[in-house]
Amino acid sequence: MATARFDVVGIGNAIVDVIAHAEEDFLAAHGLVKGAMTLIDAARAEALYAVMGPGLEMSGGSAGNTMAGLASLGGDGAYIGKVRDDQLGDVFRHDMNAVGVRFATAPARSGPATARCLILVTPDAQRTMNTYLGACVDLGPEDIDEAAIADAQVTYLEGYLYDPPRAQEAFRKAAAIAHGAGRRVALTLSDPFCVDRHRAAFRALLEDHVDILFANEAELCAMFETADFDAAVAAVRRFCDVAACTRSEKGSVVVAGEHTHVIAAAEVGRVVDTTGAGDLYASGFLFGLTRGRDLATCGRLGSLCAAEIISHVGARPEVGLATLAKEKGLI
Amino acid sequence: MATARFDVVGIGNAIVDVIAHAEEDFLAAHGLVKGAMTLIDAARAEALYAVMGPGLEMSGGSAGNTMAGLASLGGDGAYIGKVRDDQLGDVFRHDMNAVGVRFATAPARSGPATARCLILVTPDAQRTMNTYLGACVDLGPEDIDEAAIADAQVTYLEGYLYDPPRAQEAFRKAAAIAHGAGRRVALTLSDPFCVDRHRAAFRALLEDHVDILFANEAELCAMFETADFDAAVAAVRRFCDVAACTRSEKGSVVVAGEHTHVIAAAEVGRVVDTTGAGDLYASGFLFGLTRGRDLATCGRLGSLCAAEIISHVGARPEVGLATLAKEKGLI
Repeated sequence: MATARFDVVGIGNAIVDVIAHAEEDFLAAHGLVKGAMTLIDAARAEALYAVMGPGLEMSGGSAGNTMAGLASLGGDGAYIGKVRDDQLGDVFRHDMNAVGVRFATAPARSGPATARCLILVTPDAQRTMNTYLGACVDLGPEDIDEAAIADAQVTYLEGYLYDPPRAQEAFRKAAAIAHGAGRRVALTLSDPFCVDRHRAAFRALLEDHVDILFANEAELCAMFETADFDAAVAAVRRFCDVAACTRSEKGSVVVAGEHTHVIAAAEVGRVVDTTGAGDLYASGFLFGLTRGRDLATCGRLGSLCAAEIISHVGARPEVGLATLAKEKGLI
Repeated sequence: MATARFDVVGIGNAIVDVIAHAEEDFLAAHGLVKGAMTLIDAARAEALYAVMGPGLEMSGGSAGNTMAGLASLGGDGAYIGKVRDDQLGDVFRHDMNAVGVRFATAPARSGPATARCLILVTPDAQRTMNTYLGACVDLGPEDIDEAAIADAQVTYLEGYLYDPPRAQEAFRKAAAIAHGAGRRVALTLSDPFCVDRHRAAFRALLEDHVDILFANEAELCAMFETADFDAAVAAVRRFCDVAACTRSEKGSVVVAGEHTHVIAAAEVGRVVDTTGAGDLYASGFLFGLTRGRDLATCGRLGSLCAAEIISHVGARPEVGLATLAKEKGLI
């Protein structure tokens, strides 16, 4: 493969997280689906925010988190996503630039505000996400940076991108450009409900475009409509060159053709907030992959990054992941 | 004293903190005064933000933090401060309401954006603050809620409020209302450079209006232009009924007339970020005072709250302070 300017270009919903602690009964009282990502409209976002506890704001978005993690490992990344030209949009842009991820997508000059995800973290460290897509609905094929994608080893797409109306088109355009340039396309299934909403479209994408798939157990089972993880893993082998299937504290299973690598979860002192675990697993895995490491090492890098992110509140790394990975002898 | 609806009304600069980690050489390279609060204009704020690392946004402001701490202890508080009607202003308002502090000051509908404090936390846990006052410059006497102040046991003023142009007037108006209603006025000196900027005005305020003073060692020494802490403490006795003088890891000294209480610092595992230590000391102290506790207990409550806040990033409590104080037998 030709050398590339970027290791990974990530495309996703550009979101600022608003993180608050909440008790279990708060979720019940407000009809929130624990552990899931639920889409909410502006009115619901306002109503839910009004009853939430004090918040911590920080840049998020699944692919955004993945790219921040990749950069923290020392990877070269670019990001495509839509914010508005408002204060939270500026925060998102700053945080991308500050970690060294190229983010050149033009902000929307009108329309809805920058997207927010209202995240409730319960005492068991589980996160329940409520996303107001805001300006993300304006992402379209015109935002796809052809040169960047053609010059990236991997184009990484988040499944959540299938929710805003025109992003699917952007998605397919990006995949076509990547493959046209002899590059690889990676996808994360994002959330089991997201899979339910877009199963047929994801299926088509897996058949035509996806080389590397990320999915957790629930997402993979939703994708193949089975309750049996092993059956889902058997199914996914047929579609993708590589599939990294994450299983929380049970680690991950990486399959490639007939090969199977079972990776243990990395040790973590106390699990504080699971937000971003899957996103950061993808950071580590993709960093390893684009640096030519074997799949088992890629998986271990993913586990290490996921362990760091769940040890604190928020979905962006608090410590330099490269240092951490070096300490563990993984890079 | 008549019963009061509020334990404390706090008046201060309504600020959203943007917190980033930085190395010592970053401070040097950008001419930042370590440990201090420096006022910056919009252009400087933009330039400094552009070179800062990824940030964490959360509501701050000295008196705002103090009121959040008071509420966390179970106190009844109100807050007066100026934000704009923008996204960060909404964040500030939400966070006040979410902790149960009444915040009814009308936002500015035009003019500068909501204030931001760019905080660099160095590996030694010291914070270096750079404040863009933004909408705070619009706070004036018309924003002083007479009914709330007359109905609060203590009106608490932050010294930082002497920086925006019309706030001094608001300050004096609030103090006059409080005293007219037979209530007490508390002041924090905020920062040694702030004391240098406004020494004469603070001196006049101490003489005429301040019943309870909060100051750290550097601020108190700056106030009385001495390098000798004991001399500064001797001086402050003449001005205020009660003065709580904080000394970081050396605890605090509370003086009232001829009485002196030496309070040890509360134990803290690892000091992560000292932002808000003084603010939260005031939370604990004022909570004790308005609940009729003796001064030594007030000091210990202050130390406990300060210890909680420096154990994590950010200047608003992460755990319920009432629970913490009960565990220690202080309330």
